[in-house]
Amino acid sequence: MKKEIKFSLVYRDMWQSSGKYQPRVDQLVQIAPLIVEMGCFARVETNGGAFEQVNLLYGENPNVAVRAFTKPFNDAGIQTHMLDRGLNGLRMYPVPADVRRLMYKVKHAQGVDITRIFCGLNEVRNIIPSIHYALEAGMIPQATLCITFSPVHTVEYYTAIADQLIEAGAPEICLKDMAGVGRPDMLGRLTKAIRERHPEVVIQYHGHSGPGLSMASILEVCKNGADIIDVAMEPMSWGKVHPDVISVQAMLKDAGFQVPEINMKAYMKARAMTQEFIDDFLGYFMDPTNKHMSSLLLKCGLPGGMMGSMMADLKGVHSGINMILKSKNEPELSLDDLLVMLFDEVEYVWPKLGYPPLVTPFSQYVKNVALMNVMSLIKGEDRWTMIDNHTWDMILGKSGRLPGALALEIIELAKEKGYEFTDEDPQQNYPDQLDEYRKEMKENGWELGPDDEELFELAMHDRQYRDYKSGVAKKRFQDDLQRAKDAALAKQGFSEDEVRRLKRAKAEPITAMERGQILWEVDINSTSMAPEVGHKYEPNDVFCYIATPWNTFDKVWANFSGRIIEICAKQGAVVRKGDVLAYIERCEVIA
Amino acid sequence: MKKEIKFSLVYRDMWQSSGKYQPRVDQLVQIAPLIVEMGCFARVETNGGAFEQVNLLYGENPNVAVRAFTKPFNDAGIQTHMLDRGLNGLRMYPVPADVRRLMYKVKHAQGVDITRIFCGLNEVRNIIPSIHYALEAGMIPQATLCITFSPVHTVEYYTAIADQLIEAGAPEICLKDMAGVGRPDMLGRLTKAIRERHPEVVIQYHGHSGPGLSMASILEVCKNGADIIDVAMEPMSWGKVHPDVISVQAMLKDAGFQVPEINMKAYMKARAMTQEFIDDFLGYFMDPTNKHMSSLLLKCGLPGGMMGSMMADLKGVHSGINMILKSKNEPELSLDDLLVMLFDEVEYVWPKLGYPPLVTPFSQYVKNVALMNVMSLIKGEDRWTMIDNHTWDMILGKSGRLPGALALEIIELAKEKGYEFTDEDPQQNYPDQLDEYRKEMKENGWELGPDDEELFELAMHDRQYRDYKSGVAKKRFQDDLQRAKDAALAKQGFSEDEVRRLKRAKAEPITAMERGQILWEVDINSTSMAPEVGHKYEPNDVFCYIATPWNTFDKVWANFSGRIIEICAKQGAVVRKGDVLAYIERCEVIA
Repeated sequence: MKKEIKFSLVYRDMWQSSGKYQPRVDQLVQIAPLIVEMGCFARVETNGGAFEQVNLLYGENPNVAVRAFTKPFNDAGIQTHMLDRGLNGLRMYPVPADVRRLMYKVKHAQGVDITRIFCGLNEVRNIIPSIHYALEAGMIPQATLCITFSPVHTVEYYTAIADQLIEAGAPEICLKDMAGVGRPDMLGRLTKAIRERHPEVVIQYHGHSGPGLSMASILEVCKNGADIIDVAMEPMSWGKVHPDVISVQAMLKDAGFQVPEINMKAYMKARAMTQEFIDDFLGYFMDPTNKHMSSLLLKCGLPGGMMGSMMADLKGVHSGINMILKSKNEPELSLDDLLVMLFDEVEYVWPKLGYPPLVTPFSQYVKNVALMNVMSLIKGEDRWTMIDNHTWDMILGKSGRLPGALALEIIELAKEKGYEFTDEDPQQNYPDQLDEYRKEMKENGWELGPDDEELFELAMHDRQYRDYKSGVAKKRFQDDLQRAKDAALAKQGFSEDEVRRLKRAKAEPITAMERGQILWEVDINSTSMAPEVGHKYEPNDVFCYIATPWNTFDKVWANFSGRIIEICAKQGAVVRKGDVLAYIERCEVIA
Repeated sequence: MKKEIKFSLVYRDMWQSSGKYQPRVDQLVQIAPLIVEMGCFARVETNGGAFEQVNLLYGENPNVAVRAFTKPFNDAGIQTHMLDRGLNGLRMYPVPADVRRLMYKVKHAQGVDITRIFCGLNEVRNIIPSIHYALEAGMIPQATLCITFSPVHTVEYYTAIADQLIEAGAPEICLKDMAGVGRPDMLGRLTKAIRERHPEVVIQYHGHSGPGLSMASILEVCKNGADIIDVAMEPMSWGKVHPDVISVQAMLKDAGFQVPEINMKAYMKARAMTQEFIDDFLGYFMDPTNKHMSSLLLKCGLPGGMMGSMMADLKGVHSGINMILKSKNEPELSLDDLLVMLFDEVEYVWPKLGYPPLVTPFSQYVKNVALMNVMSLIKGEDRWTMIDNHTWDMILGKSGRLPGALALEIIELAKEKGYEFTDEDPQQNYPDQLDEYRKEMKENGWELGPDDEELFELAMHDRQYRDYKSGVAKKRFQDDLQRAKDAALAKQGFSEDEVRRLKRAKAEPITAMERGQILWEVDINSTSMAPEVGHKYEPNDVFCYIATPWNTFDKVWANFSGRIIEICAKQGAVVRKGDVLAYIERCEVIA
């Protein structure tokens, strides 16, 4: 009899971190029946690790979205799954135990069947409590091995972790190859080892296609006992994302596995509809290079999904770095040169930091340290001078045990700074908080929601939830979208002038009532400067001052309730009466 | 002991058919030392199947280029290889036996060690003579199996062909997976079968990454006995091209093979230099979507490298098709819809045409038939009404035996048309021609060149060689480049008007000398119309006629020697005295 392989569709955060948003609930509800109609998916990842946050980001209720998206799959008998970060829950920093526990109760009530629980350090102490909470809530806990490639990340290392997670009650193991750097043969051997020791456990493989190994890895894990493979579909397959179900199905069918057939008519319809979502608004926030693969990703081991934020970081420091080089009469660097330097530095830094698997948030930490080191080296300074507190917490053991040994120079640096290493259970540092949040909701007159889902949302993402409730999130999203649309217009051949004129047409000018020099602020600690675009004013706010030739400082009033969209006069500029100082776009009335 | 796997770098036609040109000889000479310095290549493909033609296309001598590019590799002990099409040599239609024989003598003298001989039908009668010619000339003949995926293309089918080619003297076999549709497991089984039957034969695998199977295929063929893998490097790896050496090396190293290390500093330098070549001029002729993979390629089996020309075809017929649909009150089609229809039609057509492997020229034939069928169906007509002569030749057996059986409807269509099927050796139809070409060279006073290489060049590509000698090719290339640069400017935000003005500034206007109606031509068989841009005139040519109100037809003279760059008056347009009819750019004096 042929061995059966099932497929799980990853349809969530749009193109990983290069897609800032994801389809809205109305769009998810529209696509779901087509995904069902494709007839080849046993599972769908309905809510990724950033699903809740993204919904809050654009001012929508994630609880509504999860319930709406899981329902058609629940009805069709397709399992839904989510992603969570163990100790960090659905966010990037630790979550109290009571909130973690509530999460599984809420998600189960919302129709999510499976939760893929991972810890970026593969620290079992961060995962095991979640296995218990999920079981208690009636969910299937899929315990995760974050795959990376280093001398310490051997088959034996991973097998030992899998043993502990299965022992703790996990009926499923996920090999989460989030950067696609897992070597196919090693993944095959790992699958085989787990399969032999735990014949009953479900093994699911999740890979990324960025550095090009994922298809070979899929074939190897299937040949060695995997059960379920994560796949994607156009226009969101390949590049730095996931292999496409069409190719995975064809490859496995030829290799003698029992795989479902794909309803191609439904595939093509879902493909066209997803493209419509992208054209509608998601595409404004996608980096087109995410469609490109690159083997250089193997050298640094960073997830392809991080390339977007990394490029943004580099663009931010690029001109500064070149100014330094110019002042030293050294040749300037291209963005590409800088990227290569950063990759090299990640390769250098990573072993010294004890080989934390390069997955959020640890991939960010390692990347940040590397970036800071590159900057220091260019300035002619030493490495390791700029390490942020989160990274120190990881180094000191506050996130759990590091897989490898820290370099001596890092240990000495910690001692110099008077920091202490710890081996305590990381959860100890984060006491329960639900009562606090319950109190806040009561004070605000907010509903706890069905199954306490609103309470959970506030407790998991308090700042974002408050912004969602106040309407600030929605406004911010709309501004973000407007800016992105403007930028796209500008690229399409509209001149900057034309874009500026289009934008000004919708805004109010603030003009100078007399001749003088503009003072936006007087900052004695730092450089005084004009406010940022987007800064909000009320009618009675002081907008700026005009220093007159007769030595008075006269207030200019904002006069409108709104946000600055353009600043026309810099700090210190000399203006004449009637000159436009800035344009303010009036705020919409928030419902 | 570990099994050794060697790498062969494919550095030739730029991004396959999506890159119309390739680096110039000065650029090839510049990059060669860096490729040597990378230290990981046992072989380099120095001249692909289109190398000669591309050099002639831009008016350069390919013999000079091949000698210059092979030399640094010969000196470094790296084997060089070329690609040839057996009966079709280096072109798309059959080559006389004497010219084929001369080719290997010339290429060996030029420093090419290995020739990869393929026939798009895997017809051994088209390959075996080339094996003999190559051996006779001192080259290594690498006989090729063109890989495709169909019910007739089984392991047994391919193994039987390999047996005959090895029997005929081929010391090497190439699995040429030109569309990347070979299934990894099948390729592994095929490699194993050949390896078991012929332990001494060298097996080289050449894959394309378009539909995503290639890395898994590489691992499978290596695990089953392959010796050499074709690889690429950035910025020309992945997408619809080939896997990158970095990923292939990392994957095989982990799987226990002995593989060379890569000098990454040299890799990065070669990567940057290739990017400079692209920025210089090659990039103007590259389709950016060639950097994208697509699993839809699996459904039609077409080579990813054909996507560029296919999209160009579709763009050409798109508006015409929509006009037809509009007239029938049917919904219009997007380019994407059309592409999908074309893919579906290829799937329908291919089996009926006897499953010719989808490689040049047969991939073009199948695509053309499918495109014509789509057009016919949209018009409400029958399939198969527009099959060109080359395709008929293939159907009738003039290119060799088809792998599968033809559909009955095709056989009946041939009978209706009075065509006859043949099973003769295809070479029989193409008598020797070298003496003819020798005579032409003598008459023109052209040198035969060292090792008769100029004679060979003329005999292989006569039309292109004549255009190269006359200087027309160089001029045409320069025009092509100029047009591409104009188009790029227009995309960069220059308005059409601005581009037009820039171009007009370099051209001469032809104006109307009186009032009347413009007649560019009087074509009684077809629609009369204005000439195409690029049409060439001499000063005394009639440029067009003006039909005057007093019923005379007055000639407008061209006045300049040059080419039309813009037409301002359409056929039948009414013009006034002094109106500009067109702009002519004067031809450069050809040296």
